[in-house]
Amino acid sequence: MRMGAHLEKLKSRIQELRDLSGVLGLCTWDQETYLPERAHPARAEQMGTLQGLYHERLVDDRVGEWVAGAEAEGLDDDGRAMVRVFIWERDRARRVPGDLVRALALAQSAGVTAWRQAREEKSFTGFAPSLERLLSLRREQADALGHDGQRYDALLEGYEPGMRVARLSPVLDALALELAPRAAKWADAGEAVPPWRGRRFPDAAQWRFTLRLLRDMGFDFAAGRQDRSIHPFTGGTHPLDVRLTTKVDEGNPFPALFGSLHEGGHGLYEQGFQPRDFRTPLAAAPSMGLHESQSRLWENLVGRSRAFWRHYYPLLRHELPEALGDVPEEAFFAQVNRVSRSLVRTEADEVTYNLHIVLRYHLELRLLSGDLTVADLPEAWKERMQALLGVTPRNDVEGVLQDIHWAWGEFGYFPTYALGNLYAASLFAAARRALGHLDDELGRGELLPLRDWLRENVHQLGYRLNAEELVRRATGQGLQDRDFIGYLDEKFGAGRG
Amino acid sequence: MRMGAHLEKLKSRIQELRDLSGVLGLCTWDQETYLPERAHPARAEQMGTLQGLYHERLVDDRVGEWVAGAEAEGLDDDGRAMVRVFIWERDRARRVPGDLVRALALAQSAGVTAWRQAREEKSFTGFAPSLERLLSLRREQADALGHDGQRYDALLEGYEPGMRVARLSPVLDALALELAPRAAKWADAGEAVPPWRGRRFPDAAQWRFTLRLLRDMGFDFAAGRQDRSIHPFTGGTHPLDVRLTTKVDEGNPFPALFGSLHEGGHGLYEQGFQPRDFRTPLAAAPSMGLHESQSRLWENLVGRSRAFWRHYYPLLRHELPEALGDVPEEAFFAQVNRVSRSLVRTEADEVTYNLHIVLRYHLELRLLSGDLTVADLPEAWKERMQALLGVTPRNDVEGVLQDIHWAWGEFGYFPTYALGNLYAASLFAAARRALGHLDDELGRGELLPLRDWLRENVHQLGYRLNAEELVRRATGQGLQDRDFIGYLDEKFGAGRG
Repeated sequence: MRMGAHLEKLKSRIQELRDLSGVLGLCTWDQETYLPERAHPARAEQMGTLQGLYHERLVDDRVGEWVAGAEAEGLDDDGRAMVRVFIWERDRARRVPGDLVRALALAQSAGVTAWRQAREEKSFTGFAPSLERLLSLRREQADALGHDGQRYDALLEGYEPGMRVARLSPVLDALALELAPRAAKWADAGEAVPPWRGRRFPDAAQWRFTLRLLRDMGFDFAAGRQDRSIHPFTGGTHPLDVRLTTKVDEGNPFPALFGSLHEGGHGLYEQGFQPRDFRTPLAAAPSMGLHESQSRLWENLVGRSRAFWRHYYPLLRHELPEALGDVPEEAFFAQVNRVSRSLVRTEADEVTYNLHIVLRYHLELRLLSGDLTVADLPEAWKERMQALLGVTPRNDVEGVLQDIHWAWGEFGYFPTYALGNLYAASLFAAARRALGHLDDELGRGELLPLRDWLRENVHQLGYRLNAEELVRRATGQGLQDRDFIGYLDEKFGAGRG
Repeated sequence: MRMGAHLEKLKSRIQELRDLSGVLGLCTWDQETYLPERAHPARAEQMGTLQGLYHERLVDDRVGEWVAGAEAEGLDDDGRAMVRVFIWERDRARRVPGDLVRALALAQSAGVTAWRQAREEKSFTGFAPSLERLLSLRREQADALGHDGQRYDALLEGYEPGMRVARLSPVLDALALELAPRAAKWADAGEAVPPWRGRRFPDAAQWRFTLRLLRDMGFDFAAGRQDRSIHPFTGGTHPLDVRLTTKVDEGNPFPALFGSLHEGGHGLYEQGFQPRDFRTPLAAAPSMGLHESQSRLWENLVGRSRAFWRHYYPLLRHELPEALGDVPEEAFFAQVNRVSRSLVRTEADEVTYNLHIVLRYHLELRLLSGDLTVADLPEAWKERMQALLGVTPRNDVEGVLQDIHWAWGEFGYFPTYALGNLYAASLFAAARRALGHLDDELGRGELLPLRDWLRENVHQLGYRLNAEELVRRATGQGLQDRDFIGYLDEKFGAGRG
């Protein structure tokens, strides 16, 4: 079939935009890994230039004509899907005035600065005006983007297209009700202090082991790599150029182990898109939540499972004989799965993690709607923390100042973590049903059947369906918490009565 | 002073172009260091997109209006210099038709493929048609760029602005006459086989030592870094983000040692531009030859000097006790400076190197003018090799196929290596006169006075003068070979009668 003239122009512009966004990915990766210290301001200018060009060539009026022309010429299924995703992004970009974009960028940068300062001073007060400003700009942005009366929806849409507060709130509210009593019941079993405290886990051995895990997961090192960064993330420039990062702590093996499994899950997703979708917006996950489902699945449902460590613990102990030689598998496994009602989200276990998210989600909703003032936020945080987790932060650094997200003006992002956990459990349950003997395979270190199931049912679909549609297609069910709660009960409930 | 409206627009476009070219620098660096194997085609597309945008935004008609407007508004000295350099690049870009640019890109890519194939087959024949095609396109390009009857000038101008065949040929011809007899006389003195043959120089120790050298030279690791690549080069994105690469051979310490000194020389140049020139074309060397003078100066005039090794040899031996513990300084120094009439340019010593260049320069001139046919090139190579160096390649891989430059269609590039050597000797002689006790300082490992002299007299001028003007300002003399020949005679002539 001959490609129509408009579609040809549109495709070539779309490819150009994908290349620019790939190069921006390289700039970010480099910034977090190898960029010399004094070069950060120059890098910010370079990225600003690329972002400006990206925006200019995305909103360009001619592109609108090409889209209309291509639709008139007639599109096949892939063409329609590609145009739908592209228009979604372009319409959002066109709706927000340039002045607001620039004001937001300034407020974000000021927000992060004020947040760091407030953390040093261990007091929320200095951060309040910046947060106020960010909230006001985000409200303005939400109105520019458009919504049906619920501003939060317009922001949520940017991270989790298709999701709405009306759909999300009942699920997260019910989830919190299930989790809070379980957290109280299961918390603080076993030894609080790991038996290896004070011992050294050599960097090189940890690094080698993470590479082995990634290879076993089927991560393709001819189409990706792993480097070090202070704040681990997955990036890259293309599905054949996927860059994981992790960090190694010589006093604690968990950051590298679970960091690599987590980022490896993201990485497999990025490597799983179809070649025919390369350089189009179809080679992308349909949401942050679904992307997170892949990292959580490998980090938690695989990486904290009994079967997984049955195979890998002897290998890990072999790599780290001085640190783990006298630590039995049972003791190691207990540390991997210790439940604790703690103050800090990033240190939370599988049971309490979503409670930290629900807390943030509720506060965000109230802040956006004006129902909660910024001045009252620290108190509200403490009160909800006590209600959900039974603990109270001693200061704002342990409380409302712990995450960078709000300082960066990100409202609507947090719930994607909970969606990731719920989707992960549903997908894992479906894979288990489909594969029949998944636990046996994991117990032999055979990770590829699971990778292949995910590739077929999630990765290779790219952005053809939205996240919930995709999960429904793969599991038979949309967003729900039964698989997740069932998983927790099976794992934590059985032996602990 | 208020900046005129046109100048403001022009400056902002120039900054955008510098940012794009910085990002292209990052793409190239990454390609040669960390890019996963399967990602190369995707990277080529990304870079093609950036280059296309760069070209489009450089030749843009509005830019011409801004230039005219800015000139009418009145420019200060820096503004005039910036506009001059910018127009030079823009005019060259506008003169070459898009079809020719695309044809050249294809022919270059085909040329490299055919060259690799021909090397495998150890025969020039298969490469000849590609070289023919490249020559014909380069002739066309030279005519499009414009010249006064000498096509080579139009290509040379791209690497060495301001240099002309009429100026260059007499200097290089005379140089060859000086060098050929000296090479014959000084060749093959001392041991051909290094006393450390078969020993191991551990990678980590070599790496550490190169970092030490670079630090001593004053390379700022907060504004740059060193990584590994198969073909060492210096790149980066900005004067505060300068990226050296080198390679380590555990059987031979010279590639890492002299590679790092060489690239470090380039790197100091890039780090030496003035902050007020950042993001303008003034933060650049005025020619490839002058850039090469800085690498050659550190690699050869410093790095192969008696004084330098007086200080560094004991330190190197300390780092590599098993390989060098029983090797006296004298034996090491003799290997560092061994003269040999060999077949391969990249392995050539200081005395014979320029003869390899003169050979290529003469052949290029004759190929471009049509005075020599491609079919006769291999014979001409052998004949000239025998005349200049007294050796004859046994096959084309050792002869006319040894360099990638022509396969890439680069005609006019080779002489910049010789210019680098000549300028390096002149600048080093001037620094010695100015500093008074340079040899003593080098002998104590004090490299910063020399770095500072170069910074003041070369680096910080950026692109305000062309290369020969700059050298004349720094040394009192333009292009000439007396300093270079004097340096060789002092070093190689004295003790060898």
